[in-house]
Amino acid sequence: MTRKRQLKLGFMLHGVGMGWGDWRHPDSEPTASTSFAYYKQQAQIAEAAKFDFLFVADSVFITEKSSPHYLNRFEPLTILSALAGATSHIGLVGTLTVSYSEPFNVARQFASLDHISGGRAGWNVVTSWLEGSAANYSKQSHLAHDVRYNLAGEYLDVVQGLWDSWEDDALIHDKASGVFFDPKKLHTLNHKGEFFHVKGPLNIARSPQGQPVIFQAGASEDGRNYAAQRADAIFVHHDSLDEGKAYYRDLKQRAAGFGRDPDELFILPGIRPVIGSTEEEVERKYQEFANLTSIENALSMLGRPFNDYDFLQHDLDAPFPDIAAHGANSNQSQSNRILDAARKNNLTLRQVALRFATPRTDFIGTPEQVADAFERWLVERGSDGFVVNVSLPREFEVVAETVIPILQKRGVFREEYESETFRGNLGIPVPRNRYAAGDVSVAAE
Amino acid sequence: MTRKRQLKLGFMLHGVGMGWGDWRHPDSEPTASTSFAYYKQQAQIAEAAKFDFLFVADSVFITEKSSPHYLNRFEPLTILSALAGATSHIGLVGTLTVSYSEPFNVARQFASLDHISGGRAGWNVVTSWLEGSAANYSKQSHLAHDVRYNLAGEYLDVVQGLWDSWEDDALIHDKASGVFFDPKKLHTLNHKGEFFHVKGPLNIARSPQGQPVIFQAGASEDGRNYAAQRADAIFVHHDSLDEGKAYYRDLKQRAAGFGRDPDELFILPGIRPVIGSTEEEVERKYQEFANLTSIENALSMLGRPFNDYDFLQHDLDAPFPDIAAHGANSNQSQSNRILDAARKNNLTLRQVALRFATPRTDFIGTPEQVADAFERWLVERGSDGFVVNVSLPREFEVVAETVIPILQKRGVFREEYESETFRGNLGIPVPRNRYAAGDVSVAAE
Ligand SMILES: Cc1cc2nc3c(=O)[nH]c(=O)nc-3n(C[C@H](O)[C@H](O)[C@H](O)COP(=O)(O)O)c2cc1C
Ligand SMILES: Cc1cc2nc3c(=O)[nH]c(=O)nc-3n(C[C@H](O)[C@H](O)[C@H](O)COP(=O)(O)O)c2cc1C
Repeated sequence: MTRKRQLKLGFMLHGVGMGWGDWRHPDSEPTASTSFAYYKQQAQIAEAAKFDFLFVADSVFITEKSSPHYLNRFEPLTILSALAGATSHIGLVGTLTVSYSEPFNVARQFASLDHISGGRAGWNVVTSWLEGSAANYSKQSHLAHDVRYNLAGEYLDVVQGLWDSWEDDALIHDKASGVFFDPKKLHTLNHKGEFFHVKGPLNIARSPQGQPVIFQAGASEDGRNYAAQRADAIFVHHDSLDEGKAYYRDLKQRAAGFGRDPDELFILPGIRPVIGSTEEEVERKYQEFANLTSIENALSMLGRPFNDYDFLQHDLDAPFPDIAAHGANSNQSQSNRILDAARKNNLTLRQVALRFATPRTDFIGTPEQVADAFERWLVERGSDGFVVNVSLPREFEVVAETVIPILQKRGVFREEYESETFRGNLGIPVPRNRYAAGDVSVAAE
Repeated sequence: MTRKRQLKLGFMLHGVGMGWGDWRHPDSEPTASTSFAYYKQQAQIAEAAKFDFLFVADSVFITEKSSPHYLNRFEPLTILSALAGATSHIGLVGTLTVSYSEPFNVARQFASLDHISGGRAGWNVVTSWLEGSAANYSKQSHLAHDVRYNLAGEYLDVVQGLWDSWEDDALIHDKASGVFFDPKKLHTLNHKGEFFHVKGPLNIARSPQGQPVIFQAGASEDGRNYAAQRADAIFVHHDSLDEGKAYYRDLKQRAAGFGRDPDELFILPGIRPVIGSTEEEVERKYQEFANLTSIENALSMLGRPFNDYDFLQHDLDAPFPDIAAHGANSNQSQSNRILDAARKNNLTLRQVALRFATPRTDFIGTPEQVADAFERWLVERGSDGFVVNVSLPREFEVVAETVIPILQKRGVFREEYESETFRGNLGIPVPRNRYAAGDVSVAAE
């Protein structure tokens, strides 16, 4: 008997909100970004609602023009480790860039988180989009886009190789004979590649999930192939269901092309629901949300995927400027998406900024309407689920209390966790250790 | 009124014990090294006993010859973050090497831990003693001893500089005007040194302690100066009270020479108590402890400070070998200490190995005898306290239940925490932000 296909849901955990002035709302806690109590409370709401995972974004470069949620934030591995102890079933996905870290350290920290959490770690592999980052890492310049993806491929080879250092049954602990481990089941990676030389083995046993879950968030051609080949889940942004469906088909086909089961790659767009019990309340809350964002905030947010390009220098009500002529870097999927939308719809700079800062999407409405949207995207294969992000204080509680029960009643979202591991809840197997003899391993349930 | 000088106590948190075969004890949990439940329980015992801090050692290179506690262990920042949520007053000190990490990432992770824990983070700055480590980090070779200390100095400049990026009152959060922070109180480091170029600012607000507490564990000439100038506490090993007193005098003098208040530098030798209610029980437990360690274990442990030198090749019962002739690296304080002891006492290899694996110290005896030793070292200025390490399962519970109450009754150890921050409990001030105008800050109580 095959079970009805169900949504996979993540919650985007953050403090003052993703840069759209959310902190100015009368009910917001402007110090939330470094409040463990706040993070813990949000995490526990997500777990009570049976969400698959918490998701923490990241960045490693700010200037005084950066948006509030970039300026001051927890580092992902530390806050997720702290939350591991405060939760028991929900996945813990942290963003970490391959451009400015050492694979041995990263392999260790995620393996350690997987042990601490009993098998709930996930890594969102990014390459960073901010060129300024190089200046925080004794580097001359940020690597070019294609080089970054080559590096990201080799980086993941190393990290996943290190995660297999110890076979699952390598540690014997035979007190009588004094044999702590079986040396035949400890493997030295000896990686020598273009970017990295890493010997290994890793100094931590294979973790409960065998390998932490891999997320990817990059939508260029290189980014798509990377995800289709190597990721378990993709975090993406879409403007419409049609866009989502095209992307979904494309990615699933690519996955199949790489010889993978397309059902083991989850496509999870980010959404920002605004929910009201009546149409009037919806409208009032949407305006509240839109009003939080000053045009300056919206412009600075817009500049981010263009390497912090300064849009303030342009006329707000003229057609969207030809920023390439001003030297703006726009060789990335996020920036291309914005440029396309501006050209196609003939938008002014102000319109583009507000459109991306306060999107008017399928996910704004009454609980029934929003639940319909969740289901429609799932059924029409625009996505396998979502990463839910909220801007209004307590809006996540509203999602958890009103939308989730409807989805559960309709049978498109779980009522109980299936497993204590993140892989188990996603329904994907523990990868077999590359060195192991014998049978293919089975899903961790 | 000045309070009686009191002990500062740390607890060395580990799983299967520090490499001396502890895991073979009938009561030991051999899987403890990756058990969060075990770490949490130990941490809570230490906190209930009012210990100042938990201490987690580290290393970043293993081979199949490494001792059990090196082979499989939590990564310090992740486990300490998880413990932050499970404790409320105890300091959380993690070891992290400057040789194989990026100062921007390290500054962030410790600042994040300091926020998560409400001001309880400490960093044990080490330079790593294992040359093999380089092979895990795409490096040709491990840096030379003196270069490592120069690098460590510059590294700390960068990290502490980044910790001051935001003045304490930089974040304003004025909802009405939309001003999130005061740009005059955000500072860009712009560090350009011999080893690092780091621009900043750090993307996390100044943490509750202003700057996490700095530990150092290196005892060479360079190591002593580094500690005397820059550390808040030193972790060290001594064989006798006389050795401790000489070291203590030396370090306090050096600190004064650097213009510091010597009382704000804590000297904390590691000790491994074995406690019995009678002399007979003490003897029985000491033998139990000594018997856990096979001579192979002892030799491999002994090889560690000599860059994993293989002592098995030598005759166990001949005089301690001339290992320099065999190319062993011994340019470090730890290895020199061992060589000195071997020469001075004319020991065989077996005797040296057992002496360092199962030391017979002042801290083996009945609770009263061990409490006497604690007090003697404090009063005679052999130390300011200790880092308590145990090898026998549940021995820490014995320390907490029998020795601590005696020390409290004598007034040489606290009965209640003075503060919720680690600095507050150590009685050392929050360092003033280097950019701040106005008065010198006061101790966080
Ligand atoms: C939806 C989405 C979310 C992203 N989130 C992050 C992030 O939190 N941190 C980060 O450094 N990069 C993030 N990125 C950047 C990507 O990982 C990648 O480095 C960048 O977009 C360039 O790759 P691309 O052109 O394939 O998208 C994100 C990208 C997308 C599309
Ligand atoms: C008591 C003591 C404990 C140490 N603990 C660690 C450790 O946990 N991890 C590590 O990499 N190095 C550790 N070290 C190594 C030192 O930080 C330093 O890298 C090495 O000893 C060389 O410096 P030195 O010659 O000044 O001692 C320790 C050293 C001492 C003396």
